[in-house]
Amino acid sequence: MKILVIGSTGTIGRAVVNELNDRHELILAGNKSGDITVDMNDIQSIIKMYKNCHPLDAVIVTAGAIHFAPLTAMTSELYQIGLNSKLLGQVNIVLQGLKYLNEGGSFTLTSGSANRDPYKQGSSPAMVNGAIDGFVRGAAIELPKCLRINAVSPSILTESMKDFADYFRGFKPVPAEEVAIAYSKSVEGAQTGQIYSVGELFLK
Amino acid sequence: MKILVIGSTGTIGRAVVNELNDRHELILAGNKSGDITVDMNDIQSIIKMYKNCHPLDAVIVTAGAIHFAPLTAMTSELYQIGLNSKLLGQVNIVLQGLKYLNEGGSFTLTSGSANRDPYKQGSSPAMVNGAIDGFVRGAAIELPKCLRINAVSPSILTESMKDFADYFRGFKPVPAEEVAIAYSKSVEGAQTGQIYSVGELFLK
Repeated sequence: MKILVIGSTGTIGRAVVNELNDRHELILAGNKSGDITVDMNDIQSIIKMYKNCHPLDAVIVTAGAIHFAPLTAMTSELYQIGLNSKLLGQVNIVLQGLKYLNEGGSFTLTSGSANRDPYKQGSSPAMVNGAIDGFVRGAAIELPKCLRINAVSPSILTESMKDFADYFRGFKPVPAEEVAIAYSKSVEGAQTGQIYSVGELFLK
Repeated sequence: MKILVIGSTGTIGRAVVNELNDRHELILAGNKSGDITVDMNDIQSIIKMYKNCHPLDAVIVTAGAIHFAPLTAMTSELYQIGLNSKLLGQVNIVLQGLKYLNEGGSFTLTSGSANRDPYKQGSSPAMVNGAIDGFVRGAAIELPKCLRINAVSPSILTESMKDFADYFRGFKPVPAEEVAIAYSKSVEGAQTGQIYSVGELFLK
């Protein structure tokens, strides 16, 4: 398959590339580096990216910023950071990508466990990840051309514990290598509208 | 209890007022009518509302607009309608209300079932309701003063079927009167961080 990976230089992105590289043709995109650069909040930039690499069999997004702060320090504007970047950035990739994917192709977005398993200073990720999961379930039933869409929703990464362990006591960190398997399931499997929770210790 | 009900003229809002009116002192707020008018996207308007009616024991929000359209007709801008109104409008009511609620008081927001049980033209409600549910779970663990927060997440209302039945074939509509019971559970109970799903026929 020909697979576009947006956010290929992040911790998850690199693991996804390692997981899929031997079996597929990967095109790496990033906001600053990669085979192609793209601004996920600029529709023209997204269209240009797709025109340079279509037709595609799959698009994976592991990019998007979000603001972490105590609830009492949050504002509408600070919530907008994550809504614009991690949520609408990924949504833009889907909406603009509809015509550039082959029949039966797939989108795999990245959310996170905060909306099911919240942690301190995480009200924005809880909001944004919930929105991504909802969008994936809502969009899955309306996609044209037998296109599929899933989200990978990882818990805290092993690689992130050195910086964020104090916010994730009692969480069992999951290595990015293991999270990457869920992207393979989404791209190389046939499911749609699924949220792949990876690394959550206490499932409800 | 002294309870502020924002959106008291809608189908759910009226049922909530009927449910709680005999037992509590209600203050009704709306964007155009009510005891107090408020614009949920204007922080100064929200502060003015709270200053005119605090201290409060509970705040209920049953207001917020959202855009319904096929996925292929959606854009970032159309998703922003629901994110700004139904999501951030309710979030603003919570953030600004923290200091005007009595110890142990509660916020009860309104989401909807689309993020668990999607329907055609519902990718925006699926996104926004998922975001509200996530925010409620994330915020619940960080609220000061033993404040509580829950969301009521109704399926399609019996009262809405005359206009929207074609989008909700196979759904069992729920009367607003029954949905209102969930608001009572949130306000008069002691739970927090809960999403009260009402009327969903096929629970996962």
